[in-house]
Amino acid sequence: MIEQPAPKLDILRRRDAIVAGLAALLPGSGLISDARMLKPYETDGLSAYRQAPMAVALPETTEQVAAVLRFCHENGVRVIPRGAGTSLSGGALPLEDAVVVGMMRMNAITTINYADRHAVVQAGVTNIAITQAVSDEGFFYAPDPSSQLACMIGGNVNMNSGGAHCLKYGVTTNNLLGLKIVLIDGQIIEIGGEHLDSAGYDWLGLFTGSEGQLGIVTEVTVRILRGPEGARAMLAAFDNNEIAGACVDAIIGSGIIPVALEFMDRPAIHACEAFAHAGYPLDAEALLIIEVEGSDAEIDFLLASIKDICNRFNPLSMRVSQSQAESLAIWKGRKGAFGAVGRISPDYLCMDGTIPTSQLPFVLRRISEMSDSYGLKVANIFHAGDGNLHPLIMFDANDDSSFHKAEEFGADILRLCVEVGGCLTGEHGVGVEKRELMKVQFNETELNQQRRIKSAFDPAWLLNPSKVFPLDGLSHAA
Amino acid sequence: MIEQPAPKLDILRRRDAIVAGLAALLPGSGLISDARMLKPYETDGLSAYRQAPMAVALPETTEQVAAVLRFCHENGVRVIPRGAGTSLSGGALPLEDAVVVGMMRMNAITTINYADRHAVVQAGVTNIAITQAVSDEGFFYAPDPSSQLACMIGGNVNMNSGGAHCLKYGVTTNNLLGLKIVLIDGQIIEIGGEHLDSAGYDWLGLFTGSEGQLGIVTEVTVRILRGPEGARAMLAAFDNNEIAGACVDAIIGSGIIPVALEFMDRPAIHACEAFAHAGYPLDAEALLIIEVEGSDAEIDFLLASIKDICNRFNPLSMRVSQSQAESLAIWKGRKGAFGAVGRISPDYLCMDGTIPTSQLPFVLRRISEMSDSYGLKVANIFHAGDGNLHPLIMFDANDDSSFHKAEEFGADILRLCVEVGGCLTGEHGVGVEKRELMKVQFNETELNQQRRIKSAFDPAWLLNPSKVFPLDGLSHAA
Repeated sequence: MIEQPAPKLDILRRRDAIVAGLAALLPGSGLISDARMLKPYETDGLSAYRQAPMAVALPETTEQVAAVLRFCHENGVRVIPRGAGTSLSGGALPLEDAVVVGMMRMNAITTINYADRHAVVQAGVTNIAITQAVSDEGFFYAPDPSSQLACMIGGNVNMNSGGAHCLKYGVTTNNLLGLKIVLIDGQIIEIGGEHLDSAGYDWLGLFTGSEGQLGIVTEVTVRILRGPEGARAMLAAFDNNEIAGACVDAIIGSGIIPVALEFMDRPAIHACEAFAHAGYPLDAEALLIIEVEGSDAEIDFLLASIKDICNRFNPLSMRVSQSQAESLAIWKGRKGAFGAVGRISPDYLCMDGTIPTSQLPFVLRRISEMSDSYGLKVANIFHAGDGNLHPLIMFDANDDSSFHKAEEFGADILRLCVEVGGCLTGEHGVGVEKRELMKVQFNETELNQQRRIKSAFDPAWLLNPSKVFPLDGLSHAA
Repeated sequence: MIEQPAPKLDILRRRDAIVAGLAALLPGSGLISDARMLKPYETDGLSAYRQAPMAVALPETTEQVAAVLRFCHENGVRVIPRGAGTSLSGGALPLEDAVVVGMMRMNAITTINYADRHAVVQAGVTNIAITQAVSDEGFFYAPDPSSQLACMIGGNVNMNSGGAHCLKYGVTTNNLLGLKIVLIDGQIIEIGGEHLDSAGYDWLGLFTGSEGQLGIVTEVTVRILRGPEGARAMLAAFDNNEIAGACVDAIIGSGIIPVALEFMDRPAIHACEAFAHAGYPLDAEALLIIEVEGSDAEIDFLLASIKDICNRFNPLSMRVSQSQAESLAIWKGRKGAFGAVGRISPDYLCMDGTIPTSQLPFVLRRISEMSDSYGLKVANIFHAGDGNLHPLIMFDANDDSSFHKAEEFGADILRLCVEVGGCLTGEHGVGVEKRELMKVQFNETELNQQRRIKSAFDPAWLLNPSKVFPLDGLSHAA
C-alpha cells in the first residue's frame, strides 16, 4: 500500500480563499471545486488508489497555466499536472491539499510543417490525433502507447511513453524537437526547437520523463515521419516461453530491427483471441508478433530472414499476414490486450520493467516460478524486441491480502529486472507505484543528486511531489 | 576575442602545496607540473586560444579521479576535464589556476557483450578503437566524428558528438546506455545501464553534452550495432549551391533516410580532390555525397529513388560507386576535408550550427553574401541531411583584424541559424567559442534555469567553469 505525505493543514484551512483566487484567474468553468465534479479526477490508470484533490484547474492557454502556477507558488499550494489520466503508475494521483492542473482544454494543433517534418501541438492533444492530422499526407507520429486513443502528448512527454512500434522508431524522447514549459514560479521557457541538437544542457531530454516534477508542458514540437511504403506482420508460435524468448534474442542479436516484436504467453493468447478473433494459435504456449516494413522487396527479404531464425527454434507454426485486414486483426488483438485480460480477471496490476533481451528466457522462467509460489496468475504480453516486460498480475480486489500479494509479486519482478541488468520502468514511469523501489535501482548518492535536480527547478517541491522519489527522503530534499 | 575569468589568487599562491597534494594521490608520473611538460595541454582544437594550467593530473582509475576531485573540491581548485583535446569549441581550454584532468590513461575496453549488443569502455578509449574491437564480429559503434582516430569516448559524451553517419544512427546520446561518473565531491555514481530507458530523471541524457560541467565521466556503456550487409555511395553534382540545398531538402522530405548525406561547395570540392583524388567533379559548384546501405535489393531501390529526385534538380552529373575502393576514396575526401582546407588556408574557423533542412538554400545564399561583405573566403562542407552546417571561414592568423573579422562573420552565421529556427551547435558544443552567443538562443530565465542545473551538481562552479554560459552571469550563478 502506498502512503501519502501529510496534507499541509494551513492550505486545507485556506481552501475557500485558494479556490476563489484560482477561479478569478480562469474564465467560465475553468475551475472545479464541487466534490461531485471532482470525482473523475480522484484516480488515474492505477485505479487501486484514489484521493480527491482540493480543486481542478482547466486552463485554456499557456498564460493561464502560468497564472495558476504563479498563484500556487506564492501560496505554497501543491500542483498535480494531469493529461488524460491514463498513467499506469499513479503519476496523476492527487493529494488532498493539491490543485490538479488538467490540460484537456489545450487541444489545438498549432502548426504542421511537412517540409521540415514537424508539428507543433498543445499538451492536451491526444497521441492518435497527431497521426490523424498528418496521415492524409502520408505522415505519422511514431510512438504508439496502447492508450493512444486517449492519452495526451503532454503526458507522453512526462512519462517518456513508448509503444509497440518503438522498437524501430524509439520512444517519445527520440521523437521530440521542442517544448514550451511553465516553471513553478509562472515563468515560461522554450527549449529545443525545429532543429537537430541543442546548445547548453540537454534539458529537452531531462524534461522528457520527468513526470511533471520540473514544470508543466503546454506545447510540444514533435517529429513527424513519412509512413513506410508497406508493412506486414507475421506470427510465430512456440510450445515454450523460454524458447520463444531465446528466439527473440536471436532475431535482435542478428541485427534485424523489426518495426515491432511483441510477445504473448498462453493466458494472453487466449484472452486476446477471445476478444479480437485474430486467428492466434490456441495450442501455443508463446506467440511472437513480428512486423517489418519497407518496400515489397525489403519486406520479403526481412520476413525470409526472420523465418530462417524462427525455424532454428522449432516453432509450432508460423503465419505471414497476406492482407491489410489480416494485419489489422493481428494488431487489434495485441492493442486490446489489457482490456482482453480485464475480461478474464477484472483486477490486475500491469508491471513495466526492462531487461537485456539475452535475459528473456531466464526472467520468464523466474516469473513463472514466482507465479506458482505467490499463487497468482500472470499473463505476459510485452514489447519483447526491446526487452520491455509487461507482466499482468491477476488478483481479486475484494480480497485485501490478494492485492497486497500482487503488489509484492510485482515488486519482486521489478527487483529481478534490476538484478539482471535492467530497469524499473520501460514506459509507464515511476509515479507512486514504484517510488519505494527506486532504492533498488539507485544508491543514496544517486537519489540525492536527482533530488537536487528537482530542487533546482522547484525548491519548495510543489510540482507533483510524492512521486518518483521514496517519501523518506522528502524532508532532506525540500 | 574571448575573455577568461580572473584567476583565484589564493589558489595561485598555494600552487606548490596543491601540486604536492595532488601528486601524493597519483602514483608514478601521474601529475605534470613542469612548465615545459604542460605545453601540450595549453590548447585544444580551437588553437587560437592558449592558456597553461597549474597542473595536469593523469589518473588511471575511477578511484584516482575521485581522489583528485575530492582534493580539488576541498581546496576550491577549478578542474578542466580533457580527453584527446580535439574540441573545436575550446571545451578543454585550461584556466591559469585550474588543474586539467586528462583521461588518456583510462583506455581499457572492459566488456564486450555481443548478445546484448553493448560494450563497456573507459573514458579514454578512442572512438575508432571501439569499432575496431568489435569489427571482427561484424559490429560497429555508430557515431563517427571526423576526429574519430584521436577523439575519446569520454569527450564524445561530453560534447554529444556526431559525424557523417549520424543521419541514420543518431548522435552520441542516441548510442549510449550508461555512464560511470565522478561528482565534484568525489562521489561515484552510475547512471543508465544495459537496458532501455531509465527510472527517475533522464540524467543520462542530461550528462550527454554537458561539456564536463556536471561531473567527470570515467566509464561509458555504448550500444554496438551489427553492420549492414552492404553500403554504396553516390555523387550528385550541381552548378548552384541553392539548387543542391533544395535537392537535399527534397530527398529528406521524401522520407528517405540515407545513412549519410554530405554537402561540399566549390572551394571544398577542389581542396578535397587535390588531397584525396576521389574523382570529384571539378566543374561543379556543389556536390552531394549520398550513402545508402542494406541488402543489394534495398541499395538498388534507394539509389534509384534518390537518382529520380536528383534528376528533378538538373544535376551536372551523377555517379554511383561501383566498388568498395571507389566508396573508400569518396569518403577519404570527405573525412579529410578539414585537413584539405588547411592546405589552402592554414588558418580557418570551423563553425557548427544547425538549421531546418528547408532553410538550406536561403542560408547558403546568405553565407555567400556575408562572405562577400566580410571579404573572407568560406568553404562549406557539412552534414546536409540533418541540417548541420560547418562553414570553414578562412583568415590570416598573422593579421589580428582578419581573425576578428572571421570571429564576427562566424557569430553572424550562428545568429542566422538561430533566426531561421536552428541552433548554435550541432556537434562541437558551446565551449568558450559560443559562450556569449548563448544569449541569442536563450533568454535570461532560460539561462538562469540551466545555471541552476549546473549549481545542483557543482555549487561552487569548479568543474570546467567559464564554458557554455556567458561570463557575465557567473556571479549570479555561483
